[in-house]
Amino acid sequence: MAGNTFGTLFTVTTFGESHGPAIGCIVDGCPAGIPFDTAFLQNELDRRRPGQSAIVTQRKESDIPQVLSGVFEGHTTGMPIAIVIPNEDQRSKDYDHIARAFRPSHADYTWEAKYGIRDFRGGGRSSARETAARVAAGAIAKMFLKTVGIHIQAYVSQVGPLALKAAYTELDLALTEQNDVRCPDPVMAQKMINLIKKVRKAGDTIGGVVNCVVKGAPVGLGEPVFDRLHAELAKAMMSINAAKGFEYGSGFEGVKMTGSQHNDAWVIGPDGTPVTTSNHSGGIQGGVSNGMDIYCRVAFKPVATIVPEQDSLDQHLQPVKIKGKGRHDPCVVPRAVPIVESMAALVIADFYLRARL
Amino acid sequence: MAGNTFGTLFTVTTFGESHGPAIGCIVDGCPAGIPFDTAFLQNELDRRRPGQSAIVTQRKESDIPQVLSGVFEGHTTGMPIAIVIPNEDQRSKDYDHIARAFRPSHADYTWEAKYGIRDFRGGGRSSARETAARVAAGAIAKMFLKTVGIHIQAYVSQVGPLALKAAYTELDLALTEQNDVRCPDPVMAQKMINLIKKVRKAGDTIGGVVNCVVKGAPVGLGEPVFDRLHAELAKAMMSINAAKGFEYGSGFEGVKMTGSQHNDAWVIGPDGTPVTTSNHSGGIQGGVSNGMDIYCRVAFKPVATIVPEQDSLDQHLQPVKIKGKGRHDPCVVPRAVPIVESMAALVIADFYLRARL
Amino acid sequence: MAGNTFGTLFTVTTFGESHGPAIGCIVDGCPAGIPFDTAFLQNELDRRRPGQSAIVTQRKESDIPQVLSGVFEGHTTGMPIAIVIPNEDQRSKDYDHIARAFRPSHADYTWEAKYGIRDFRGGGRSSARETAARVAAGAIAKMFLKTVGIHIQAYVSQVGPLALKAAYTELDLALTEQNDVRCPDPVMAQKMINLIKKVRKAGDTIGGVVNCVVKGAPVGLGEPVFDRLHAELAKAMMSINAAKGFEYGSGFEGVKMTGSQHNDAWVIGPDGTPVTTSNHSGGIQGGVSNGMDIYCRVAFKPVATIVPEQDSLDQHLQPVKIKGKGRHDPCVVPRAVPIVESMAALVIADFYLRARL
Amino acid sequence: MAGNTFGTLFTVTTFGESHGPAIGCIVDGCPAGIPFDTAFLQNELDRRRPGQSAIVTQRKESDIPQVLSGVFEGHTTGMPIAIVIPNEDQRSKDYDHIARAFRPSHADYTWEAKYGIRDFRGGGRSSARETAARVAAGAIAKMFLKTVGIHIQAYVSQVGPLALKAAYTELDLALTEQNDVRCPDPVMAQKMINLIKKVRKAGDTIGGVVNCVVKGAPVGLGEPVFDRLHAELAKAMMSINAAKGFEYGSGFEGVKMTGSQHNDAWVIGPDGTPVTTSNHSGGIQGGVSNGMDIYCRVAFKPVATIVPEQDSLDQHLQPVKIKGKGRHDPCVVPRAVPIVESMAALVIADFYLRARL
Repeated sequence: MAGNTFGTLFTVTTFGESHGPAIGCIVDGCPAGIPFDTAFLQNELDRRRPGQSAIVTQRKESDIPQVLSGVFEGHTTGMPIAIVIPNEDQRSKDYDHIARAFRPSHADYTWEAKYGIRDFRGGGRSSARETAARVAAGAIAKMFLKTVGIHIQAYVSQVGPLALKAAYTELDLALTEQNDVRCPDPVMAQKMINLIKKVRKAGDTIGGVVNCVVKGAPVGLGEPVFDRLHAELAKAMMSINAAKGFEYGSGFEGVKMTGSQHNDAWVIGPDGTPVTTSNHSGGIQGGVSNGMDIYCRVAFKPVATIVPEQDSLDQHLQPVKIKGKGRHDPCVVPRAVPIVESMAALVIADFYLRARL
Repeated sequence: MAGNTFGTLFTVTTFGESHGPAIGCIVDGCPAGIPFDTAFLQNELDRRRPGQSAIVTQRKESDIPQVLSGVFEGHTTGMPIAIVIPNEDQRSKDYDHIARAFRPSHADYTWEAKYGIRDFRGGGRSSARETAARVAAGAIAKMFLKTVGIHIQAYVSQVGPLALKAAYTELDLALTEQNDVRCPDPVMAQKMINLIKKVRKAGDTIGGVVNCVVKGAPVGLGEPVFDRLHAELAKAMMSINAAKGFEYGSGFEGVKMTGSQHNDAWVIGPDGTPVTTSNHSGGIQGGVSNGMDIYCRVAFKPVATIVPEQDSLDQHLQPVKIKGKGRHDPCVVPRAVPIVESMAALVIADFYLRARL
Repeated sequence: MAGNTFGTLFTVTTFGESHGPAIGCIVDGCPAGIPFDTAFLQNELDRRRPGQSAIVTQRKESDIPQVLSGVFEGHTTGMPIAIVIPNEDQRSKDYDHIARAFRPSHADYTWEAKYGIRDFRGGGRSSARETAARVAAGAIAKMFLKTVGIHIQAYVSQVGPLALKAAYTELDLALTEQNDVRCPDPVMAQKMINLIKKVRKAGDTIGGVVNCVVKGAPVGLGEPVFDRLHAELAKAMMSINAAKGFEYGSGFEGVKMTGSQHNDAWVIGPDGTPVTTSNHSGGIQGGVSNGMDIYCRVAFKPVATIVPEQDSLDQHLQPVKIKGKGRHDPCVVPRAVPIVESMAALVIADFYLRARL
Repeated sequence: MAGNTFGTLFTVTTFGESHGPAIGCIVDGCPAGIPFDTAFLQNELDRRRPGQSAIVTQRKESDIPQVLSGVFEGHTTGMPIAIVIPNEDQRSKDYDHIARAFRPSHADYTWEAKYGIRDFRGGGRSSARETAARVAAGAIAKMFLKTVGIHIQAYVSQVGPLALKAAYTELDLALTEQNDVRCPDPVMAQKMINLIKKVRKAGDTIGGVVNCVVKGAPVGLGEPVFDRLHAELAKAMMSINAAKGFEYGSGFEGVKMTGSQHNDAWVIGPDGTPVTTSNHSGGIQGGVSNGMDIYCRVAFKPVATIVPEQDSLDQHLQPVKIKGKGRHDPCVVPRAVPIVESMAALVIADFYLRARL
């Protein structure tokens, strides 16, 4: 019950189904007086928009947001900000018996079993279309974070087996948005694009990894012992459709290290404040930000919607063959980049308020 | 502010510092009428207890819980259950200037910066001692889950570079508790123990991975879109001291697969209900349990407390040399096993209530 | 920060300002499978609608709701239900310096001081227009409660000094909606209407009291010790614009009684279940419903918007004269009836889910 | 489920039953660095303590608190503060069949029906003994509020029909603690004491009203639209055992006034900030504090435990005669004074943090 709100002080509640009239969100708790940048909001939605390139879903949505409240004379007022994004692509498909079947590795069966009723059109509420509302909310969080000097950037670091070896510190993240796959290494980006095109041609999908870096976060974000900064980041990221794994700092690789290798030594930095000489901690110690860059990685599985015929069950639990129609996303990670950033922004904004900075 | 409560309906709030009079918790929301098994509670605490074997910290604590409320005539009453665990090992150390220094990769600096004051004795609230309260709470969650047929078991799958290749389905998890490292493969267990002993001898530490399996969970646990079952599991696990990564089902490895490889086909199982022929989904689809085993993995970094001298800063931001005293935990994962189970139990119990099953 | 959500499991989040494009809400946590009655939703909004009679504000709003999500094939799906109600009466007033002044006993000064910015048009977010969103949410709560046999009815028991002496048990509540003031005693209703008309003619306003009765509630609603049923009812009612007091059962009068007079004796009722011979408890004992009627009363102050000139301060803290324009509500209670019912419905629905009935 | 926590940022969770080993609380979210005044904590508990005078319950409890965490070197650390208060008066009564019966107007029946099990000894969790934990938490909130110049004082304004006519502004509240009934008017106090003694002699009980005044609160406390300052105050007060009504500012009397009488005019005060010439608003406008005194009133019913024989039902729903043993509280309001103050302190502290002042 009631799992559609995220955050404690800077909160977002999302609504909407894939083929309903609209999706959207209410952001409650954004501080008053933040300049509201409508063009930026649209730009963020465009970064997530279907049909933006040849390697993403070709669903047709212009994703034009309507801001219904909470903004006055170009600034936030501290009141809830409601944003509605009308759905345009609601083709009057004939939803035959297949439409109600339980597609493999989708939410179809679990939601039908849980709720006893399900808006099955295009996946309904379980569709990744919901993430547009997150990006709208994340854009507002970013507007707030901008006023306090915090910047968030994500990029694709892996598609299928193709993985960047370089750490984010060795990359020019400014190149990220210059290619369709959003990988800041142009050579690797091309390989990834080729792989995605190949997978797509086969009517199949492939997984990937998105890395995210938060710069400019002050010391003190995170509320132990349960609401550790990275614990909320983990929840936020894992709540995105298709997410399967989360790690921050040294992550899973770090378990192989010894403490003497892994520990980040404290020294005085150029500006007189403490810095660590390495950052295996990922900018978080004891669940609280330490002033260094915060970075994490999110694994996404291959999208479950594929073209080739699969065995499954229908709503009467009878065997059925299911076949995709080819408008699916061959690889979720290019469009996941702004979603990951948005969730990071929501977490950081919330902890910024909770820390009373 | 106020980050010491976990859960929505089945909640736990923990308190206590490493060298204060006691640690403990309040569990609020446990259903009434659950048989309260005091011996089981003690046994769970014993599984986490310091000094239980040669490969864990040798701090002396008997960890005897006092149940102050919420239990009557051997059953829970639906009222908050308060448990206090007195601290015994509060040696009157001379806390010299080193004691107040900022140990590398500890919570020392971030908490001092955040709160302006810090009980530095033994790490205070940031000490892993706090996890004893989680295990007490988890024991209560397990008592509840037992009444609805849900069983949770964790085990160590990796210590440093030594990683089990077998999936949990290929292991006899009943062997887990038969060795000090809690790895169900006896041969690998011995290797892990040897490695930990070697690392310990060097005054160093090493990381590891704990796997966790939930059996018997019904279809329907998890509350999309933000409170997905695996999202809360991720938060729960990442809130444990030293956790660095979380994955469920196919996890980070799954990103290399195609959708046609990764999808779990639905068929009718032996008892007439739907089952999947594979379980890359880790028992969760669309954020909701699907009736299959739920499984996940948690990465733990090497403990930051080590013996060899390290460079750091003191509370006046002056350079200082820090050296450990040798009572630390050389590898956190053996004792993390009951903690991981406890956090899983708390998550599952909470969603069980939220699903109104 | 973030005070626009009410409820734990059955939740509502509202948004919107008086003169923005729309107001509305998201209801999250409504169980799936509830028949969604669009006509009933409209009817509930009509009961609160401005301009419905000669004794309420003459603002022109048709209050036609758009249901954007969470309903499929005529039933709720368990997903968040978003409702948007466009504002029609956004006259392009010239908002002169008076518009930004701090009207006496309004939210103007406190909100300006708190947020530093304020949508002053028509009171913005502090306008009672926000309560339309509550009535929409309450209508959904009522749809749910109807399926479990719970019925809620409010009525006006006092306008200024004109107070009904009869208890609700002595009245025919079916008569409530048959007059403009919503008082079930036709003779008293006429007196109240006359008083309101007189007050209105003077450009003034008058206070009143709304009584509310919940019938059919099962034993067990309410979650002690803080979330007592009547404590949440109190919060819910006091969160309505202009509410100044709340009492349930014997209320403030009951303090004059002795325990032997006040205690409600238990006997076996006609259907074999326990009932009390009196109901000073107002259907709630120990914070939990006892199966008897739940009843409470809510006091509303005279609306602060009046016609006669008043002294006040402008936003530069300079003295200013303020004069109303005559479209205000002379007495809030007739329109408060459906609002009070809505808040009661939201509270009862939430506790019904929390009690796992 | 899980209703034993109050607050959003400054939170308290209480536990404990009347005849269990102890009661207590965890306060989570108290800012770090607040001087912790142990003597004050004890003094506050003494104000609520049984047996403090001839007109309260004669249960024997010394109520000595043990502070288990969250305090270091005389200051709060920002960590959860756990306080345990051992129960001393656990006489080994023979709990015969009457003990399990459902006493009229007690929580006995509703809790038994709700939970199916109940610690009936002395009322168990539903006993007003739980309020000692609230007073301990309230003492901490007061320590915090003291550092920001906010002072809270409650007093008894009515016992049975004996009601003070004077407003708090006409009374010398410094006299409150100088008599057993805590009424600042010495003449009225003596009448109240006489009445309580008379009622007590009859083995009966009587109700009363507690008024509460908050001085020094800044502008800006309260989070509309649901978490209005007075809405949370209402919930807080109504969550106290035996509370039946709440009003603030002009309250129920104010409904008789017209807007032109009731409105509080803004003028510039002696120190150059806006003040109102009257304070019917009770220091709160639009749900947010306006800098004037905040004041409210709470009605308490006569305690349900009385000596004279009453008809009731036992746990098998058979008729039974119930008779009290004479240790009950003849009038709850003298001891309710510190409880009301504590709940007010918790609400104000929470909103202070939420307002980010």
